[in-house]
Amino acid sequence: MAEFKQFEVTNGKGFDLKKMKPDMEIPKESKEKISEQTKKNLDEIAALQDKLYADGKEGLIIILQAMDAAGKDSTVKHVMSSVNPQGIDVFSFKQPSATELAHDFLWRIGKCIPERGKISLFNRSYYEDVLVVKVHEINKTYKMPKRCTSEPDDVFFGQRYEDIRNFEEYLYRQGYRIVKIFLNVSKDEQKKRFLERIDKKEKNWKFSSADITERKLWDKYQKAYQDAIEATATEHCPWYVVPADQKWYTRLIVSEVLLDVLQKIAPEYPTLTPEAMKDLESCKAALEGGKTNKAK
Amino acid sequence: MAEFKQFEVTNGKGFDLKKMKPDMEIPKESKEKISEQTKKNLDEIAALQDKLYADGKEGLIIILQAMDAAGKDSTVKHVMSSVNPQGIDVFSFKQPSATELAHDFLWRIGKCIPERGKISLFNRSYYEDVLVVKVHEINKTYKMPKRCTSEPDDVFFGQRYEDIRNFEEYLYRQGYRIVKIFLNVSKDEQKKRFLERIDKKEKNWKFSSADITERKLWDKYQKAYQDAIEATATEHCPWYVVPADQKWYTRLIVSEVLLDVLQKIAPEYPTLTPEAMKDLESCKAALEGGKTNKAK
Repeated sequence: MAEFKQFEVTNGKGFDLKKMKPDMEIPKESKEKISEQTKKNLDEIAALQDKLYADGKEGLIIILQAMDAAGKDSTVKHVMSSVNPQGIDVFSFKQPSATELAHDFLWRIGKCIPERGKISLFNRSYYEDVLVVKVHEINKTYKMPKRCTSEPDDVFFGQRYEDIRNFEEYLYRQGYRIVKIFLNVSKDEQKKRFLERIDKKEKNWKFSSADITERKLWDKYQKAYQDAIEATATEHCPWYVVPADQKWYTRLIVSEVLLDVLQKIAPEYPTLTPEAMKDLESCKAALEGGKTNKAK
Repeated sequence: MAEFKQFEVTNGKGFDLKKMKPDMEIPKESKEKISEQTKKNLDEIAALQDKLYADGKEGLIIILQAMDAAGKDSTVKHVMSSVNPQGIDVFSFKQPSATELAHDFLWRIGKCIPERGKISLFNRSYYEDVLVVKVHEINKTYKMPKRCTSEPDDVFFGQRYEDIRNFEEYLYRQGYRIVKIFLNVSKDEQKKRFLERIDKKEKNWKFSSADITERKLWDKYQKAYQDAIEATATEHCPWYVVPADQKWYTRLIVSEVLLDVLQKIAPEYPTLTPEAMKDLESCKAALEGGKTNKAK
């Protein structure tokens, strides 16, 4: 249970995405053992999540970012399905609407911050505003005052990184934990998965020709991820750059990351005051001693 | 039109609330002239607000903070009524709900950030979280993890000030202006207005016995305002400490403040590209040449 530690980035300085392996080349024989360990972790996660909800003191935000076909959806499905749905909400952030674009970029996020005691999972997030926006230079089309749009790109995105750091530190101070997961898939594995999506009928719906356009921008995206992680990995809100070429290994690591953050939160079922305990006792007595009121 | 400048605080360092006058003791003879000037300002504000809306590039947030009976409601009524209601929304922040308390303190604010091109007026605001919360030590009752609630008060509120500064700077970078107005009423004038609320039947609804409890905490509140303004007055998001003992003077100053910020924004009606202009021309030709379709 310290496998995930090698993928943790708590200080962006000196971070090098190129050094992070998308594929750990774990032999297939290990798959069963790893899947078993994952299942065990999921059971522990479920138990801790129940306490988190009862305790209601801390909120958890899990951010999933990745290139296409890196396995975001399947991670949500396999790792989160053990959690009581009452305690978790999943939000997918797609292209912003006109109303969203008319506001500050964190505006649509605000509504998805969980109550303390709950978990929000962001399938993509405000990091898109320093990823796809940067790669496609969408910021140049923004309807904003000149003082905002006339900044050179490095200043513009430098400020965004800072705003994100401040926002996440603020949430930490407010009783939240933020866990940021980058599913690190290789370009080869993406190709393989795209071909599968094209070849298998039941997977066709997951493919779009736009995926190929984006794939051509692979290097630009990697650079954008490099810059974003470098600028926003902090002790309180770390990034996890998780190898994503072998899904069963990915799931193990993600489950470890979640288990770790929940153990750090260390939620406890609320304990009652002596007065409240007395109350409980007298309620019990009333229930046991009372006659049923069935017949009028 | 530079009267308001003496009440502007663009740098909190060295700010001293005690030196700010609640009463400028303007002779009553000046009232008519001042009211006329206010009306002129309001007309200019209305014209600029129309452009702000059409331009849609910058959003404006006006924060009104004050002790009870300082004239918040009447300022909203008299200064904002010239503005097209389609371009402004007023939000009153009262005691937070259970759901609001279960979130970070800026959560309920996020929903009230205007689209660019619009104005949001906050009647009270997130500053209550460093005012009433501080005075009544409400933070000690928060259901938050120990790492948040175990901080000494100066650290806890020091972080809140910083979070507020960061939040406001972020909004500025996102194309917003924030204008923070403290209606600076004197303790004597408050007493007078409370008595009026008790004596005049049609004003009874504005009075609550809780107002007297709060009045007893006058000095603590003044200290909290002093600290908050000192910590959060910045060049981009200044405070205006407006004398509030003479309502007609208050209105002049508030109107000047608004006019000033709108002039800084300098909104313009959008101008069309040459192609769009051609389009307009052909639309005009079609309208003028076309036969009315009244008779089938």
